[in-house]
Amino acid sequence: MYKAKAYSAANATSPLASNTIPRREPTEQDVQIEILFCGICHSDLHTVRDEWHSVMPTVYPCVPGHEIVGKVTKVGSGVTRFKPGDLAGVGCLVDSDHTCPSCRDGLEQFCPEMTLTYNSPDKHLGGVTYGGYSDSIVVDEHFVLHVPANLNLAGVAPLLCAGITTYSPLRHWGVTTGKKVGVVGLGGLGHMGVKFARAFGAHVVVFTTSPGKKADALRLGAHEVVISSNAEEMQKHAGSFDFILDTVSADHDINAYINLLTRDGNLTLVGAPEKPLAVSAFGLLFGRRSLSGSPIGGIAETQEMLDFCGKHGITADVEIIPIQKVNEAYERLVKADVKYRFSIDMASLKSE
Amino acid sequence: MYKAKAYSAANATSPLASNTIPRREPTEQDVQIEILFCGICHSDLHTVRDEWHSVMPTVYPCVPGHEIVGKVTKVGSGVTRFKPGDLAGVGCLVDSDHTCPSCRDGLEQFCPEMTLTYNSPDKHLGGVTYGGYSDSIVVDEHFVLHVPANLNLAGVAPLLCAGITTYSPLRHWGVTTGKKVGVVGLGGLGHMGVKFARAFGAHVVVFTTSPGKKADALRLGAHEVVISSNAEEMQKHAGSFDFILDTVSADHDINAYINLLTRDGNLTLVGAPEKPLAVSAFGLLFGRRSLSGSPIGGIAETQEMLDFCGKHGITADVEIIPIQKVNEAYERLVKADVKYRFSIDMASLKSE
Repeated sequence: MYKAKAYSAANATSPLASNTIPRREPTEQDVQIEILFCGICHSDLHTVRDEWHSVMPTVYPCVPGHEIVGKVTKVGSGVTRFKPGDLAGVGCLVDSDHTCPSCRDGLEQFCPEMTLTYNSPDKHLGGVTYGGYSDSIVVDEHFVLHVPANLNLAGVAPLLCAGITTYSPLRHWGVTTGKKVGVVGLGGLGHMGVKFARAFGAHVVVFTTSPGKKADALRLGAHEVVISSNAEEMQKHAGSFDFILDTVSADHDINAYINLLTRDGNLTLVGAPEKPLAVSAFGLLFGRRSLSGSPIGGIAETQEMLDFCGKHGITADVEIIPIQKVNEAYERLVKADVKYRFSIDMASLKSE
Repeated sequence: MYKAKAYSAANATSPLASNTIPRREPTEQDVQIEILFCGICHSDLHTVRDEWHSVMPTVYPCVPGHEIVGKVTKVGSGVTRFKPGDLAGVGCLVDSDHTCPSCRDGLEQFCPEMTLTYNSPDKHLGGVTYGGYSDSIVVDEHFVLHVPANLNLAGVAPLLCAGITTYSPLRHWGVTTGKKVGVVGLGGLGHMGVKFARAFGAHVVVFTTSPGKKADALRLGAHEVVISSNAEEMQKHAGSFDFILDTVSADHDINAYINLLTRDGNLTLVGAPEKPLAVSAFGLLFGRRSLSGSPIGGIAETQEMLDFCGKHGITADVEIIPIQKVNEAYERLVKADVKYRFSIDMASLKSE
């Protein structure tokens, strides 16, 4: 066991502050990573503030962060796919049972025994797992991803959650050339959804409440932008979408989007509004439409996504901050005041 | 044009009463049918009482009925598939545009120009279409179904709506041997869902709020019955269903059922609750589950369903009533006091 530097929250209302946390010495199959960048995901904020208490109560101290990119510093004797000096990524998962039907299908995100990167029972040290707002992490090789060398590392970090969370449902629901795809919300998830849907060859329409985001949506790859408060503009697209990716975690009128789906069209939620959504049965019945959810992706698909990003030069648009600005960044995140993801430069942690 | 006997409602609060209505003389492609039995569907009641006003306002007088079985009395010169004396069925649709993508795919139930059997604009006579609470109907050959000769006709009538409404989503979502299938609600739709799911080889679990329905559910083909108010019993089935058919049109907790789905499982609504359903995003996210709706089925699939019923000896369980008891039947329908569908013996209309 060794001590790592980290930023942690002491309770649901305290700010994140400098601390030290225990990390295990790498076991045979572990990879030790020096963290270079960690993205700030909305889940970090929800967990730090215990806003998902009813589903996953937060254990304190809490070290969030599951958009991790860094450099391998040490590997266990059984590790075959990584060596010191390699670039490496870690997303939302650091372990699973490897034996359940989901694990056997390479869909570790559905393993009933999965270990999340933070706030999950830690099998090695007890307590809970600590995430990427830290200078170092130790992870089972199976959950460590290769990072393409040609990409900007600060922009790679958010791919480990925001990237795979949007890539996976777009792939699962068959988004490809000739499909009409909507992306609801242009934030950390939405801007990745636009990039991927465009790269997959779809006709991409962004829905936003903010007219000010129009130019940026087009720059990111959207073919059209619809201001969702404009009922007339919405109506023009009625019944026309093969797939809609809904990235909004605030309460919103989901029926307005379900009605835009074509026959057998699907709307997938990747945001998780706290309040239940009010869903009209008629909107689903009339077109045999479906409403789904999708969480992150499996490890194999996460690697596929990273390789795709390497090939197509895709990264997240990030604002790099030192870790000392993380609490300020949370306040700005609540106001959606970031284009489009904060990426913490972990070099800033050395001075703590 | 000729006069037909019918039972109609004069407004949203008046009972159904004897009346005469105009029917067109069969055109070249029309089939004229003497109606022998007509099932009573919940939609009849909703429409007669204008309870779907916001979606489909009712035009009065209103003659409901879209579970029609009878005998062909006359055919137009261009009709090739029917001759006088043939058994014939008519369901929820009597016309569509024949040219849209849905019609070309044999999915007329999604045609934007479809004509419903009642309360739809009547292209031939103006006003609205009149349904099956009548002694006669004239329908375009394309929308007339062949009825297997070996089946009880009173029990065939409900197949035209309750039958296809449950058959179609079970087929669409791949219910077959080895699948675990839930049926929520044991009424007109639910009891058909049980019969079909069982005939398709699935392991069938019925969810009901009424312990009194347990024996009957097993008799109809269920392997297990769960009392849905028993949280412990529900919990035993968490994450285990490939498909759930939800036939309940009253307000109910849909999340309790979504949580019973396995990874990639689907819950399809065939009932249409008036109030929006409160759907938790977490239930959908955690298993990449989906919530869908499905309305009736296309004409080709309706024929396939009838042929399947003929082959497997499947009909609805009905209580036969004379049309003079239709208002009383509506009151009993509201209380779910029927096993499991009323079928009106249209011979009773002759005495009016």
